Amino acid sequence: MPTPADRPLLDANPLPDGLPSRLVEQLTFLAEVDKLKTVLRQSPLAAAPRRENDAEHSWHLALMVTVLAEYANEPIDVGHTVELVVVHDLVEIYAGDTPLYDDEGRLTQEQREREAADALFGLLPDDQARRLRAWWDEFEARATPEARFAKAMDRLQPLLLNWLAKGGTWRTPGVTADTVRSRKACVGEASAELGAVARTLIDEGERRGWVEPGHHNPDPVAG
Amino acid sequence: MPTPADRPLLDANPLPDGLPSRLVEQLTFLAEVDKLKTVLRQSPLAAAPRRENDAEHSWHLALMVTVLAEYANEPIDVGHTVELVVVHDLVEIYAGDTPLYDDEGRLTQEQREREAADALFGLLPDDQARRLRAWWDEFEARATPEARFAKAMDRLQPLLLNWLAKGGTWRTPGVTADTVRSRKACVGEASAELGAVARTLIDEGERRGWVEPGHHNPDPVAG
Ligand SMILES: [Ca+2]
Repeated sequence: MPTPADRPLLDANPLPDGLPSRLVEQLTFLAEVDKLKTVLRQSPLAAAPRRENDAEHSWHLALMVTVLAEYANEPIDVGHTVELVVVHDLVEIYAGDTPLYDDEGRLTQEQREREAADALFGLLPDDQARRLRAWWDEFEARATPEARFAKAMDRLQPLLLNWLAKGGTWRTPGVTADTVRSRKACVGEASAELGAVARTLIDEGERRGWVEPGHHNPDPVAG
Repeated sequence: MPTPADRPLLDANPLPDGLPSRLVEQLTFLAEVDKLKTVLRQSPLAAAPRRENDAEHSWHLALMVTVLAEYANEPIDVGHTVELVVVHDLVEIYAGDTPLYDDEGRLTQEQREREAADALFGLLPDDQARRLRAWWDEFEARATPEARFAKAMDRLQPLLLNWLAKGGTWRTPGVTADTVRSRKACVGEASAELGAVARTLIDEGERRGWVEPGHHNPDPVAG
Protein backbone atom coordinates (compact mmCIF):
# COMPACT_ATOMS: atom_id res chain seq x y z
CA MET A 1 0.00 0.00 0.00
CA PRO A 2 1.29 3.50 -0.78
CA THR A 3 1.96 5.66 2.30
CA PRO A 4 2.21 9.42 2.81
CA ALA A 5 5.99 8.90 3.08
CA ASP A 6 6.16 7.66 -0.53
CA ARG A 7 7.39 10.08 -3.15
CA PRO A 8 4.62 11.35 -5.45
CA LEU A 9 4.43 9.41 -8.74
CA LEU A 10 5.48 12.47 -10.72
CA ASP A 11 8.81 12.64 -8.82
CA ALA A 12 10.00 9.64 -10.85
CA ASN A 13 9.51 11.66 -14.02
CA PRO A 14 9.23 15.38 -13.27
CA LEU A 15 7.36 17.69 -15.61
CA PRO A 16 9.46 19.79 -18.00
CA ASP A 17 10.79 23.09 -16.68
CA GLY A 18 8.95 26.27 -17.40
CA LEU A 19 5.38 25.33 -16.43
CA PRO A 20 3.67 27.69 -13.93
CA SER A 21 4.23 26.45 -10.36
CA ARG A 22 0.50 26.41 -9.56
CA LEU A 23 -0.12 24.11 -12.52
CA VAL A 24 2.78 21.88 -11.50
CA GLU A 25 1.22 21.44 -8.04
CA GLN A 26 -2.16 20.63 -9.59
CA LEU A 27 -0.71 18.12 -12.05
CA THR A 28 1.39 16.51 -9.31
CA PHE A 29 -1.82 15.93 -7.34
CA LEU A 30 -3.72 14.72 -10.42
CA ALA A 31 -0.94 12.24 -11.24
CA GLU A 32 -0.73 11.05 -7.63
CA VAL A 33 -4.45 10.21 -7.47
CA ASP A 34 -3.84 7.55 -10.13
CA LYS A 35 -3.03 5.41 -7.08
CA LEU A 36 -6.74 5.33 -6.12
CA LYS A 37 -7.16 2.85 -9.00
CA THR A 38 -5.00 0.39 -7.05
CA VAL A 39 -6.87 0.57 -3.72
CA LEU A 40 -9.05 -2.53 -3.62
CA ARG A 41 -12.37 -2.76 -1.83
CA GLN A 42 -14.01 -5.92 -0.53
CA SER A 43 -16.94 -5.68 -2.95
CA PRO A 44 -16.99 -8.06 -5.92
CA LEU A 45 -17.82 -6.55 -9.32
CA ALA A 46 -20.97 -7.81 -10.98
CA ALA A 47 -19.41 -7.70 -14.45
CA ALA A 48 -16.11 -9.52 -13.80
CA PRO A 49 -14.64 -11.96 -11.25
CA ARG A 50 -12.53 -9.50 -9.32
CA ARG A 51 -12.79 -6.96 -6.50
CA GLU A 52 -13.72 -3.36 -7.13
CA ASN A 53 -11.20 -0.54 -6.79
CA ASP A 54 -11.88 2.83 -5.18
CA ALA A 55 -11.69 4.84 -8.41
CA GLU A 56 -14.32 2.83 -10.26
CA HIS A 57 -16.43 2.72 -7.08
CA SER A 58 -16.29 6.54 -6.87
CA TRP A 59 -17.34 6.81 -10.51
CA HIS A 60 -20.26 4.45 -9.89
CA LEU A 61 -21.45 6.63 -6.99
CA ALA A 62 -21.25 9.73 -9.18
CA LEU A 63 -23.55 8.14 -11.75
CA MET A 64 -25.91 6.93 -9.00
CA VAL A 65 -26.20 10.49 -7.70
CA THR A 66 -27.28 11.79 -11.11
CA VAL A 67 -29.89 9.03 -11.54
CA LEU A 68 -31.25 8.77 -7.98
CA ALA A 69 -31.11 12.40 -6.77
CA GLU A 70 -34.90 12.69 -7.15
CA TYR A 71 -35.29 10.46 -4.07
CA ALA A 72 -33.39 12.72 -1.65
CA ASN A 73 -35.46 13.53 1.45
CA GLU A 74 -34.09 17.08 1.41
CA PRO A 75 -33.37 19.14 -1.74
CA ILE A 76 -29.74 18.62 -2.85
CA ASP A 77 -27.35 20.37 -5.22
CA VAL A 78 -26.64 17.46 -7.57
CA GLY A 79 -23.38 18.87 -8.94
CA HIS A 80 -21.93 19.36 -5.47
CA THR A 81 -23.09 15.90 -4.36
CA VAL A 82 -21.18 14.47 -7.32
CA GLU A 83 -18.10 16.48 -6.26
CA LEU A 84 -18.37 14.95 -2.78
CA VAL A 85 -18.46 11.35 -4.04
CA VAL A 86 -15.60 12.01 -6.47
CA VAL A 87 -13.29 13.02 -3.58
CA HIS A 88 -14.77 10.91 -0.76
CA ASP A 89 -12.30 8.01 -0.93
CA LEU A 90 -9.11 9.90 -1.91
CA VAL A 91 -7.64 9.60 1.58
CA GLU A 92 -7.60 5.82 1.09
CA ILE A 93 -4.66 6.30 -1.30
CA TYR A 94 -2.50 6.56 1.84
CA ALA A 95 -4.83 5.17 4.53
CA GLY A 96 -6.15 2.12 2.67
CA ASP A 97 -9.74 0.92 2.48
CA THR A 98 -11.21 0.04 5.86
CA PRO A 99 -13.85 -2.62 5.23
CA LEU A 100 -17.29 -1.74 6.62
CA TYR A 101 -17.29 -4.91 8.71
CA ASP A 102 -13.67 -4.58 10.06
CA ASP A 103 -14.29 -3.27 13.60
CA GLU A 104 -10.58 -3.31 14.56
CA GLY A 105 -9.46 -1.32 11.51
CA ARG A 106 -12.23 1.17 12.18
CA LEU A 107 -10.68 2.09 15.57
CA THR A 108 -7.59 3.65 13.94
CA GLN A 109 -9.32 4.71 10.74
CA GLU A 110 -10.03 8.31 11.74
CA GLN A 111 -6.43 9.17 12.66
CA ARG A 112 -4.96 7.36 9.63
CA GLU A 113 -7.35 9.10 7.27
CA ARG A 114 -6.72 12.54 8.76
CA GLU A 115 -2.96 12.16 8.25
CA ALA A 116 -3.58 10.91 4.73
CA ALA A 117 -5.77 13.92 3.96
CA ASP A 118 -3.04 16.30 5.13
CA ALA A 119 -0.45 14.59 2.93
CA LEU A 120 -2.55 14.16 -0.20
CA PHE A 121 -4.48 17.43 -0.31
CA GLY A 122 -1.23 19.17 0.70
CA LEU A 123 0.08 18.49 -2.81
CA LEU A 124 -2.45 21.04 -4.15
CA PRO A 125 -2.17 24.84 -4.07
CA ASP A 126 -3.35 26.03 -0.63
CA ASP A 127 -6.76 27.32 -1.71
CA GLN A 128 -7.62 24.06 -3.44
CA ALA A 129 -6.16 21.94 -0.64
CA ARG A 130 -8.53 23.72 1.74
CA ARG A 131 -11.50 23.30 -0.60
CA LEU A 132 -11.08 19.56 -1.19
CA ARG A 133 -10.32 19.01 2.49
CA ALA A 134 -13.53 20.88 3.37
CA TRP A 135 -15.50 18.64 0.98
CA TRP A 136 -14.05 15.54 2.56
CA ASP A 137 -14.81 16.85 6.07
CA GLU A 138 -18.35 17.70 4.92
CA PHE A 139 -18.80 14.16 3.60
CA GLU A 140 -17.39 12.48 6.71
CA ALA A 141 -19.45 14.63 9.10
CA ARG A 142 -22.62 14.18 6.99
CA ALA A 143 -22.94 17.88 7.69
CA THR A 144 -25.23 18.77 4.76
CA PRO A 145 -28.07 17.21 2.73
CA GLU A 146 -25.53 16.65 -0.08
CA ALA A 147 -23.14 14.81 2.27
CA ARG A 148 -25.96 12.68 3.67
CA PHE A 149 -27.08 11.70 0.17
CA ALA A 150 -23.48 11.01 -0.91
CA LYS A 151 -23.00 8.74 2.12
CA ALA A 152 -26.27 6.96 1.30
CA MET A 153 -24.95 6.20 -2.21
CA ASP A 154 -21.70 4.93 -0.65
CA ARG A 155 -23.75 2.42 1.37
CA LEU A 156 -26.34 1.56 -1.28
CA GLN A 157 -23.85 0.76 -4.07
CA PRO A 158 -22.10 -2.20 -2.37
CA LEU A 159 -25.53 -3.44 -1.33
CA LEU A 160 -26.49 -3.58 -5.01
CA LEU A 161 -23.21 -5.40 -5.81
CA ASN A 162 -23.82 -7.83 -2.94
CA TRP A 163 -27.30 -8.52 -4.29
CA LEU A 164 -25.85 -9.20 -7.76
CA ALA A 165 -23.27 -11.54 -6.17
CA LYS A 166 -25.94 -13.34 -4.13
CA GLY A 167 -24.13 -12.46 -0.93
CA GLY A 168 -20.72 -10.90 -1.59
CA THR A 169 -19.39 -9.23 1.56
CA TRP A 170 -22.61 -10.17 3.42
CA ARG A 171 -20.89 -13.55 3.78
CA THR A 172 -18.04 -12.05 5.86
CA PRO A 173 -17.67 -14.20 9.04
CA GLY A 174 -19.50 -12.60 11.96
CA VAL A 175 -21.79 -10.50 9.79
CA THR A 176 -25.53 -11.04 10.15
CA ALA A 177 -28.54 -9.41 8.54
CA ASP A 178 -28.76 -7.20 11.65
CA THR A 179 -25.18 -5.96 11.14
CA VAL A 180 -26.03 -5.11 7.56
CA ARG A 181 -29.25 -3.36 8.56
CA SER A 182 -27.50 -1.15 11.11
CA ARG A 183 -24.71 -0.24 8.64
CA LYS A 184 -27.29 0.72 6.02
CA ALA A 185 -29.43 2.88 8.32
CA CYS A 186 -27.99 6.06 6.78
CA VAL A 187 -29.60 5.21 3.44
CA GLY A 188 -33.07 5.73 4.90
CA GLU A 189 -31.93 8.91 6.64
CA ALA A 190 -31.10 10.44 3.26
CA SER A 191 -33.95 8.92 1.25
CA ALA A 192 -37.10 7.16 2.42
CA GLU A 193 -37.57 5.37 -0.93
CA LEU A 194 -33.96 4.17 -1.16
CA GLY A 195 -34.01 3.16 2.50
CA ALA A 196 -36.98 0.95 1.63
CA VAL A 197 -35.02 -0.56 -1.27
CA ALA A 198 -32.09 -1.31 1.06
CA ARG A 199 -34.43 -2.94 3.58
CA THR A 200 -36.12 -5.03 0.90
CA LEU A 201 -32.81 -6.33 -0.48
CA ILE A 202 -31.48 -7.20 2.99
CA ASP A 203 -34.74 -8.87 4.08
CA GLU A 204 -34.89 -10.90 0.88
CA GLY A 205 -31.15 -11.74 1.05
CA GLU A 206 -31.71 -13.00 4.61
CA ARG A 207 -34.71 -15.06 3.48
CA ARG A 208 -32.61 -16.64 0.70
CA GLY A 209 -29.71 -17.46 3.03
CA TRP A 210 -27.23 -15.01 1.41
CA VAL A 211 -26.52 -13.47 4.81
CA GLU A 212 -26.60 -15.01 8.31
CA PRO A 213 -30.02 -14.42 9.88
CA GLY A 214 -30.33 -11.57 12.39
CA HIS A 215 -31.66 -12.02 15.88
CA HIS A 216 -34.24 -9.29 15.75
CA ASN A 217 -37.04 -8.48 13.42
CA PRO A 218 -36.10 -5.89 10.83
CA ASP A 219 -36.23 -2.43 12.44
CA PRO A 220 -38.52 -0.38 10.24
CA VAL A 221 -36.60 2.80 11.07
CA ALA A 222 -33.11 1.42 10.43
CA GLY A 223 -33.08 1.37 6.61
CA MET B 1 -17.09 -7.58 -25.09
CA PRO B 2 -20.71 -7.09 -23.96
CA THR B 3 -23.14 -6.19 -26.76
CA PRO B 4 -26.58 -4.54 -26.77
CA ALA B 5 -27.99 -8.03 -27.40
CA ASP B 6 -26.73 -9.28 -24.02
CA ARG B 7 -29.24 -9.55 -21.20
CA PRO B 8 -28.77 -6.87 -18.53
CA LEU B 9 -26.73 -8.09 -15.55
CA LEU B 10 -29.73 -7.81 -13.24
CA ASP B 11 -31.69 -10.32 -15.36
CA ALA B 12 -29.51 -13.09 -13.89
CA ASN B 13 -30.74 -12.16 -10.44
CA PRO B 14 -33.88 -10.02 -10.64
CA LEU B 15 -34.76 -7.61 -7.84
CA PRO B 16 -37.41 -8.77 -5.35
CA ASP B 17 -41.04 -8.11 -6.29
CA GLY B 18 -42.82 -5.09 -4.97
CA LEU B 19 -40.32 -2.32 -5.78
CA PRO B 20 -41.71 0.65 -7.76
CA SER B 21 -41.21 0.07 -11.51
CA ARG B 22 -39.38 3.39 -11.99
CA LEU B 23 -36.86 2.40 -9.35
CA VAL B 24 -36.44 -1.05 -10.91
CA GLU B 25 -35.58 0.57 -14.25
CA GLN B 26 -33.08 2.89 -12.57
CA LEU B 27 -31.42 0.07 -10.61
CA THR B 28 -31.30 -2.13 -13.72
CA PHE B 29 -29.37 0.65 -15.48
CA LEU B 30 -27.13 1.25 -12.46
CA ALA B 31 -26.30 -2.45 -12.23
CA GLU B 32 -25.67 -2.70 -15.99
CA VAL B 33 -23.13 0.13 -15.95
CA ASP B 34 -20.90 -2.06 -13.75
CA LYS B 35 -19.70 -3.35 -17.15
CA LEU B 36 -17.87 -0.05 -17.79
CA LYS B 37 -15.30 -1.28 -15.26
CA THR B 38 -14.39 -4.07 -17.71
CA VAL B 39 -13.89 -1.90 -20.82
CA LEU B 40 -10.13 -1.49 -21.17
CA ARG B 41 -8.43 1.52 -22.71
CA GLN B 42 -4.99 1.58 -24.28
CA SER B 43 -3.55 3.90 -21.63
CA PRO B 44 -1.24 2.38 -19.02
CA LEU B 45 -1.85 3.34 -15.38
CA ALA B 46 0.94 5.23 -13.69
CA ALA B 47 0.36 3.44 -10.38
CA ALA B 48 0.25 -0.20 -11.53
CA PRO B 49 1.43 -2.29 -14.51
CA ARG B 50 -1.91 -2.65 -16.23
CA ARG B 51 -4.20 -0.80 -18.63
CA GLU B 52 -6.81 1.65 -17.44
CA ASN B 53 -10.54 0.89 -17.58
CA ASP B 54 -13.24 3.33 -18.64
CA ALA B 55 -14.81 3.68 -15.19
CA GLU B 56 -11.62 4.71 -13.43
CA HIS B 57 -10.74 6.93 -16.41
CA SER B 58 -14.12 8.69 -16.09
CA TRP B 59 -13.53 9.21 -12.37
CA HIS B 60 -10.09 10.67 -13.08
CA LEU B 61 -11.62 13.17 -15.52
CA ALA B 62 -14.22 14.19 -12.93
CA LEU B 63 -11.50 15.04 -10.44
CA MET B 64 -9.51 16.88 -13.13
CA VAL B 65 -12.55 19.04 -13.87
CA THR B 66 -12.86 20.11 -10.23
CA VAL B 67 -9.14 20.97 -9.99
CA LEU B 68 -8.54 22.53 -13.43
CA ALA B 69 -11.85 24.35 -14.11
CA GLU B 70 -10.17 27.69 -13.39
CA TYR B 71 -8.31 27.40 -16.71
CA ALA B 72 -11.40 27.18 -18.93
CA ASN B 73 -11.34 29.81 -21.70
CA GLU B 74 -15.09 30.34 -21.26
CA PRO B 75 -16.96 30.25 -17.93
CA ILE B 76 -18.22 26.71 -17.20
CA ASP B 77 -20.73 25.16 -14.82
CA VAL B 78 -18.37 22.81 -12.98
CA GLY B 79 -21.09 20.46 -11.70
CA HIS B 80 -22.52 19.96 -15.17
CA THR B 81 -19.05 19.45 -16.65
CA VAL B 82 -18.52 16.68 -14.10
CA GLU B 83 -21.86 15.14 -15.12
CA LEU B 84 -20.70 15.13 -18.74
CA VAL B 85 -17.45 13.29 -18.01
CA VAL B 86 -19.22 10.79 -15.75
CA VAL B 87 -21.48 9.69 -18.65
CA HIS B 88 -19.17 10.36 -21.61
CA ASP B 89 -17.87 6.79 -22.05
CA LEU B 90 -21.00 4.82 -21.10
CA VAL B 91 -21.76 3.87 -24.71
CA GLU B 92 -18.49 1.94 -24.77
CA ILE B 93 -20.15 -0.69 -22.58
CA TYR B 94 -21.71 -1.99 -25.80
CA ALA B 95 -19.57 -0.27 -28.49
CA GLY B 96 -16.13 -0.88 -26.97
CA ASP B 97 -13.26 1.59 -26.66
CA THR B 98 -12.07 2.94 -29.99
CA PRO B 99 -8.40 3.85 -29.53
CA LEU B 100 -7.58 7.45 -30.49
CA TYR B 101 -5.01 6.22 -33.00
CA ASP B 102 -7.18 3.44 -34.57
CA ASP B 103 -8.31 5.10 -37.83
CA GLU B 104 -10.20 2.01 -39.09
CA GLY B 105 -12.23 1.57 -35.91
CA ARG B 106 -13.06 5.25 -35.97
CA LEU B 107 -14.91 4.85 -39.32
CA THR B 108 -17.65 2.70 -37.75
CA GLN B 109 -17.44 4.28 -34.33
CA GLU B 110 -20.29 6.75 -34.72
CA GLN B 111 -22.91 4.20 -35.79
CA ARG B 112 -21.82 1.63 -33.20
CA GLU B 113 -21.94 4.19 -30.44
CA ARG B 114 -25.35 5.52 -31.46
CA GLU B 115 -26.85 2.02 -31.31
CA ALA B 116 -25.16 1.46 -27.97
CA ALA B 117 -26.61 4.69 -26.60
CA ASP B 118 -30.13 3.64 -27.63
CA ALA B 119 -29.74 0.26 -25.91
CA LEU B 120 -28.07 1.44 -22.72
CA PHE B 121 -29.94 4.67 -22.00
CA GLY B 122 -33.14 2.84 -23.00
CA LEU B 123 -32.91 0.89 -19.75
CA LEU B 124 -33.74 4.11 -17.85
CA PRO B 125 -37.16 5.72 -17.41
CA ASP B 126 -37.90 7.81 -20.54
CA ASP B 127 -37.25 11.22 -19.00
CA GLN B 128 -33.84 10.14 -17.69
CA ALA B 129 -32.98 8.26 -20.89
CA ARG B 130 -33.55 11.51 -22.78
CA ARG B 131 -31.51 13.53 -20.27
CA LEU B 132 -28.43 11.29 -20.26
CA ARG B 133 -28.63 10.89 -24.03
CA ALA B 134 -28.73 14.68 -24.38
CA TRP B 135 -25.65 14.97 -22.17
CA TRP B 136 -23.80 12.45 -24.30
CA ASP B 137 -24.85 14.24 -27.50
CA GLU B 138 -23.72 17.54 -25.96
CA PHE B 139 -20.32 16.03 -25.13
CA GLU B 140 -19.85 14.46 -28.55
CA ALA B 141 -20.87 17.63 -30.43
CA ARG B 142 -18.73 19.82 -28.14
CA ALA B 143 -21.83 21.98 -28.26
CA THR B 144 -21.22 23.97 -25.07
CA PRO B 145 -18.30 25.38 -23.06
CA GLU B 146 -18.84 22.52 -20.58
CA ALA B 147 -18.63 19.91 -23.36
CA ARG B 148 -15.51 21.51 -24.79
CA PHE B 149 -13.81 21.51 -21.40
CA ALA B 150 -14.90 17.91 -20.73
CA LYS B 151 -13.44 16.83 -24.07
CA ALA B 152 -10.21 18.67 -23.25
CA MET B 153 -9.92 16.67 -20.02
CA ASP B 154 -10.56 13.48 -22.00
CA ARG B 155 -7.54 14.33 -24.17
CA LEU B 156 -5.29 15.75 -21.46
CA GLN B 157 -5.62 12.83 -19.03
CA PRO B 158 -4.05 10.13 -21.29
CA LEU B 159 -1.35 12.65 -22.20
CA LEU B 160 -0.47 12.87 -18.51
CA LEU B 161 -0.45 9.05 -18.26
CA ASN B 162 1.73 8.82 -21.38
CA TRP B 163 4.15 11.31 -19.85
CA LEU B 164 4.30 9.23 -16.66
CA ALA B 165 4.92 6.09 -18.76
CA LYS B 166 7.63 7.82 -20.80
CA GLY B 167 5.69 7.15 -23.98
CA GLY B 168 2.71 4.87 -23.39
CA THR B 169 0.37 4.96 -26.37
CA TRP B 170 2.60 7.56 -28.06
CA ARG B 171 4.64 4.49 -29.05
CA THR B 172 1.77 3.04 -31.11
CA PRO B 173 3.18 2.14 -34.58
CA GLY B 174 2.47 4.90 -37.10
CA VAL B 175 1.96 7.59 -34.47
CA THR B 176 4.25 10.62 -34.59
CA ALA B 177 4.48 13.78 -32.54
CA ASP B 178 2.41 15.47 -35.27
CA THR B 179 -0.39 12.91 -34.87
CA VAL B 180 -0.41 13.54 -31.16
CA ARG B 181 -0.41 17.31 -31.64
CA SER B 182 -3.40 17.23 -33.97
CA ARG B 183 -5.36 14.91 -31.65
CA LYS B 184 -4.70 17.21 -28.70
CA ALA B 185 -5.70 20.44 -30.49
CA CYS B 186 -9.03 20.51 -28.64
CA VAL B 187 -7.22 21.02 -25.33
CA GLY B 188 -6.06 24.47 -26.41
CA GLU B 189 -9.52 25.28 -27.78
CA ALA B 190 -10.98 24.81 -24.29
CA SER B 191 -8.08 26.25 -22.28
CA ALA B 192 -5.10 28.30 -23.43
CA GLU B 193 -3.04 27.36 -20.34
CA LEU B 194 -3.77 23.64 -20.58
CA GLY B 195 -3.18 23.71 -24.32
CA ALA B 196 0.27 25.09 -23.54
CA VAL B 197 0.85 22.24 -21.06
CA ALA B 198 -0.14 19.69 -23.70
CA ARG B 199 2.23 21.29 -26.23
CA THR B 200 5.09 21.36 -23.73
CA LEU B 201 4.68 17.68 -22.85
CA ILE B 202 4.49 16.61 -26.49
CA ASP B 203 7.46 18.74 -27.55
CA GLU B 204 9.55 17.46 -24.67
CA GLY B 205 8.41 13.85 -25.27
CA GLU B 206 9.49 14.23 -28.90
CA ARG B 207 12.85 15.66 -27.82
CA ARG B 208 13.41 12.69 -25.48
CA GLY B 209 12.47 10.13 -28.13
CA TRP B 210 9.27 8.93 -26.39
CA VAL B 211 7.30 9.52 -29.59
CA GLU B 212 8.38 9.36 -33.26
CA PRO B 213 9.44 12.81 -34.43
CA GLY B 214 6.91 14.80 -36.47
CA HIS B 215 7.70 16.20 -39.89
CA HIS B 216 6.64 19.74 -39.16
CA ASN B 217 7.52 22.21 -36.52
CA PRO B 218 5.01 22.29 -33.69
CA ASP B 219 1.95 24.27 -34.81
CA PRO B 220 1.47 26.97 -32.19
CA VAL B 221 -2.31 26.93 -32.75
CA ALA B 222 -2.77 23.16 -32.52
CA GLY B 223 -2.43 22.66 -28.74
CA1 LIG C 1 -14.57 3.82 1.68
